[in-house]
Amino acid sequence: MKVRPVAWTRDGLRILDQTRLPDRETYIHCTRVSQVVRAIKRLQVRGAPLLGITAAYAMALVRPTALQKAADQLIAARPTAINLAWAVRRVLAKGSPALNEARAIHREDAVMCDAIGKHGASLKSKRILTICNTGALATGGIGTAFGVCLRSRAKIFACETRPLSQGARLTMWEAEKWGLDAQLIVDGAAATTMKNKGIDLVVTGADRIARNGDAANKIGTLGLAIAARQFKIPFYIAAPSSTFDPACKTGADIPIEERDPSEISSRFPAYNPAFDVTPAKPITGIITEKGIFRPGKLKASQGGF
Amino acid sequence: MKVRPVAWTRDGLRILDQTRLPDRETYIHCTRVSQVVRAIKRLQVRGAPLLGITAAYAMALVRPTALQKAADQLIAARPTAINLAWAVRRVLAKGSPALNEARAIHREDAVMCDAIGKHGASLKSKRILTICNTGALATGGIGTAFGVCLRSRAKIFACETRPLSQGARLTMWEAEKWGLDAQLIVDGAAATTMKNKGIDLVVTGADRIARNGDAANKIGTLGLAIAARQFKIPFYIAAPSSTFDPACKTGADIPIEERDPSEISSRFPAYNPAFDVTPAKPITGIITEKGIFRPGKLKASQGGF
Repeated sequence: MKVRPVAWTRDGLRILDQTRLPDRETYIHCTRVSQVVRAIKRLQVRGAPLLGITAAYAMALVRPTALQKAADQLIAARPTAINLAWAVRRVLAKGSPALNEARAIHREDAVMCDAIGKHGASLKSKRILTICNTGALATGGIGTAFGVCLRSRAKIFACETRPLSQGARLTMWEAEKWGLDAQLIVDGAAATTMKNKGIDLVVTGADRIARNGDAANKIGTLGLAIAARQFKIPFYIAAPSSTFDPACKTGADIPIEERDPSEISSRFPAYNPAFDVTPAKPITGIITEKGIFRPGKLKASQGGF
Repeated sequence: MKVRPVAWTRDGLRILDQTRLPDRETYIHCTRVSQVVRAIKRLQVRGAPLLGITAAYAMALVRPTALQKAADQLIAARPTAINLAWAVRRVLAKGSPALNEARAIHREDAVMCDAIGKHGASLKSKRILTICNTGALATGGIGTAFGVCLRSRAKIFACETRPLSQGARLTMWEAEKWGLDAQLIVDGAAATTMKNKGIDLVVTGADRIARNGDAANKIGTLGLAIAARQFKIPFYIAAPSSTFDPACKTGADIPIEERDPSEISSRFPAYNPAFDVTPAKPITGIITEKGIFRPGKLKASQGGF
């Protein structure tokens, strides 16, 4: 499958507009950092690892003297995913040429995805439930949690992922491109699907992981972790090691982006956090490119009605 | 507030088309049972108690000799809510005039709603999370779980309730009409809202309750019950006693309606159960017109990460 959500071209940075998928494949051409910042804020490009890659390329659009200002703008575009700040700081630390560093980050991410997929496949899962989009549209390679699904050759149950429906629009589109067996469910159907459909793995991505193993990810992830524990189904996070933020001691230190209520309703008041924090305890393991870490342990005796 | 989701008129049964709400208040006029069955299947009229009331009125549209055939058609329209069959059988048992019995069922439901609201308010909850619509649009009175919110004068967090958004469209509309403090959340935000927004009660309706206290309700309810237990928040069902089905020993005996995947996606394969079954254990209590029943006990020691 060939999906190139970001690509460096002679005319600058080309971004696949993910808000139009799966209906239309249209591209945004960015020659200024402000254009990239806008695309990030509008979620035209999204996914924690891909945000890092995109921001790194954006740094290559400015003169060396403007790098710090660009870095500040990019890091402020979205607060929760640490990969964005991580990539920008890496480019800053190397100095110019920024493009070389961006390309290295992009290449390395593809390699990390392959490793994550391989480690995840060692769990030998056959029926996997996941949320949001963590595939080629969210990374520089095959994906994180989606890569685990792919390499496991598993049947996928994809949560719709309201309010912006990344599961319904993006994960199902990628699954179709790969020819995978996938079924869409509404987010509210996750618990009954776990209970009745033989799910043997719940795996999600992460936007930031604290030192104690608490993990911020797409809104809905916390409920999946709690339900998985209840039904004694392993719950894993799949993310590159750059998702760990040593500056966060626990999940309470992770800033959670609250987005506009109009994403949910044009008419009524709404509370719209884009992410939630899953404590380390119900996380069976974190699948990284370096292997599987187990900050908490699933105690079978704690689940079960 | 005056909402009349069904009304008997000189021209037959008038049904408020709930699929058009909150944008438009349009009505369907039914003079034949087949029209009522179609409106029920399309969810133009919905809500377990209201389905019973509607079906009872539909029985008044036919000649006495056609009552059994009408009963069969109505009961088959939607399989999960027991109130529908309960009301139809009650009209059948009385024989004609069906209209008198339908009116009695309607009046009694309004009285039961008031009693449920009163019993629920004794819990003195201040911040309530709920799902689907269980108000005037779902009953013959102020509602079941919604009536508890109303009589508690609580702040409401309303789950959107995908795929058909009864929370976003109907509950928020009713809350606005009553002038209640209510905020809409996506279904995936329920767990983090419970954890971070001081929720002191989760209350939902029910479509059918088995003898052991297992309860079928709108898809997503099971996940709410599991999360509430995790966070040691009381989880109650509010429903008239006619929701108990003595023919169901456990939740496994309750038929779960699976609806068309096109409700979720016009493009991709989907699994679309309309209801899930919450086991009795995480249900703190069932609020009925006769008082609060406690089939299971919330054991504080079982919650908490």
